[in-house]
Amino acid sequence: MQRIEHHASFGGRQEVWQHASTSTGTDMKFGIYLPPKAVAGEKCPVLYWLSGLTCTEQNFITKAGAQQFAAQHNLIVVAPDTSPRGEGVANDEAYDLGQGAGFYVNATQAPWAQHFRMEDYVVDELPALIEQHFPANPMRGISGHSMGGHGALTLALRHPGIYKSVSAFSPIVAPTQVPWGQKALKAYLGDDATAWKQHDAVELVTSATERLPLLVDQGDADEFLVNQLKPELLKAACDRAGHPLTLRMQPGYDHSYYFIASFMGDHMAHHARALKAG
Amino acid sequence: MQRIEHHASFGGRQEVWQHASTSTGTDMKFGIYLPPKAVAGEKCPVLYWLSGLTCTEQNFITKAGAQQFAAQHNLIVVAPDTSPRGEGVANDEAYDLGQGAGFYVNATQAPWAQHFRMEDYVVDELPALIEQHFPANPMRGISGHSMGGHGALTLALRHPGIYKSVSAFSPIVAPTQVPWGQKALKAYLGDDATAWKQHDAVELVTSATERLPLLVDQGDADEFLVNQLKPELLKAACDRAGHPLTLRMQPGYDHSYYFIASFMGDHMAHHARALKAG
Repeated sequence: MQRIEHHASFGGRQEVWQHASTSTGTDMKFGIYLPPKAVAGEKCPVLYWLSGLTCTEQNFITKAGAQQFAAQHNLIVVAPDTSPRGEGVANDEAYDLGQGAGFYVNATQAPWAQHFRMEDYVVDELPALIEQHFPANPMRGISGHSMGGHGALTLALRHPGIYKSVSAFSPIVAPTQVPWGQKALKAYLGDDATAWKQHDAVELVTSATERLPLLVDQGDADEFLVNQLKPELLKAACDRAGHPLTLRMQPGYDHSYYFIASFMGDHMAHHARALKAG
Repeated sequence: MQRIEHHASFGGRQEVWQHASTSTGTDMKFGIYLPPKAVAGEKCPVLYWLSGLTCTEQNFITKAGAQQFAAQHNLIVVAPDTSPRGEGVANDEAYDLGQGAGFYVNATQAPWAQHFRMEDYVVDELPALIEQHFPANPMRGISGHSMGGHGALTLALRHPGIYKSVSAFSPIVAPTQVPWGQKALKAYLGDDATAWKQHDAVELVTSATERLPLLVDQGDADEFLVNQLKPELLKAACDRAGHPLTLRMQPGYDHSYYFIASFMGDHMAHHARALKAG
């Protein structure tokens, strides 16, 4: 584990670390915000943030404005890279497959299976590392944007009991039904669409055993709303299943970090309440 | 004038515009945040933000987290590019001269004099454009970071009565005494050091006719503190001249936007009070 950046931020510290990951077999980077209480050595809950297509660990920490609220609530916020990277790692010329587009699954298909194990990385390896090296208590929340909103919803639904809070901005709620998801899940998991359904929030809500409340914000001027995001499918599935969902359509907002920053305070308060931060 | 970006942000709008500048003879870009009242057509005061070396109009609008506070106070915030740019514009391989390093002066020396007229652009052309095209009232504040902190302090001191509030993060307070400033002022203004003094905040404070209070934040872990920034020189000059200065040394903070974001709320409140925003 090597610290490659550190900056004072809102009375706490924004850091970036790099380590050799056993899940992906590559070096992985993550951002971590340590609020004032954590800097002072007191154990704090951890919010995991999953970014969207093309992002690295940098986008969230530089653009989302989360540190201010993490400091207020004394929440640690961990933001990993979105995929394995490097010369020996499979890739694709398209922005929506390969490096920068891990979709938070463990790939089973060549050439992806060797390194693309982002579910193991996010759910198991990274939290163990965080709890070992930082003043983190075991209370965990998860959030993310777009592909990372898909990651937050599906990982929370696939691993009941692990996450005490979940939220998403502009998530891909039904990857089995939209082009981004169909392309990635076919590449990473193969032709059998039943495997894809295990990574589709709309499918998972239907059979969820734990009724973890979902908070979702979605801009109604989002350029990907109609073809890729389709929040109405999540609404219908939650209604059918009796799964608690707060879906907020935000008028005029697009898919950018300007949207995320505008509602970050609400999401951080949502997680802080559930994680008993303070 | 052409709008090239627009995003909903904290109930207002973050936009980027491009226009043919008569000052620089090039196309110039600027970011503008329109708070909720401005979007509704009500005239609001304007804070001009000047960025530092290497920055474009993008750095501040994506990283500083100012929109939240601009929305609260109903302040318009305008963030221009830091220099003229383009193929026909003089440049230098170094990051601290030429494109991205205009230093907010009107250059008098070849090859810079043709396009590098950032003082005219920021003080005259841009505000006229803003007041013509947006719901801006004539109340103006100015702030900036590093080279832009130098710009904010010197433009406010050189143009008494024009700016009702001024602040700076990590400013170059004495460019005539430090390597960044000596290199740029010599290139843009020539060998005569008396010309440089007209663009040096420490020199200008000494002879200021208007006692506009200065708010300056400076991180004490700033990697440029000792060699380039030297806030103690501004403190001494203000003490001698009886010029009101609030200089806050912020323990542990560096030169980055993480520092700027951490204290942006204080600066926006400072400007909002003086500009009667609300």
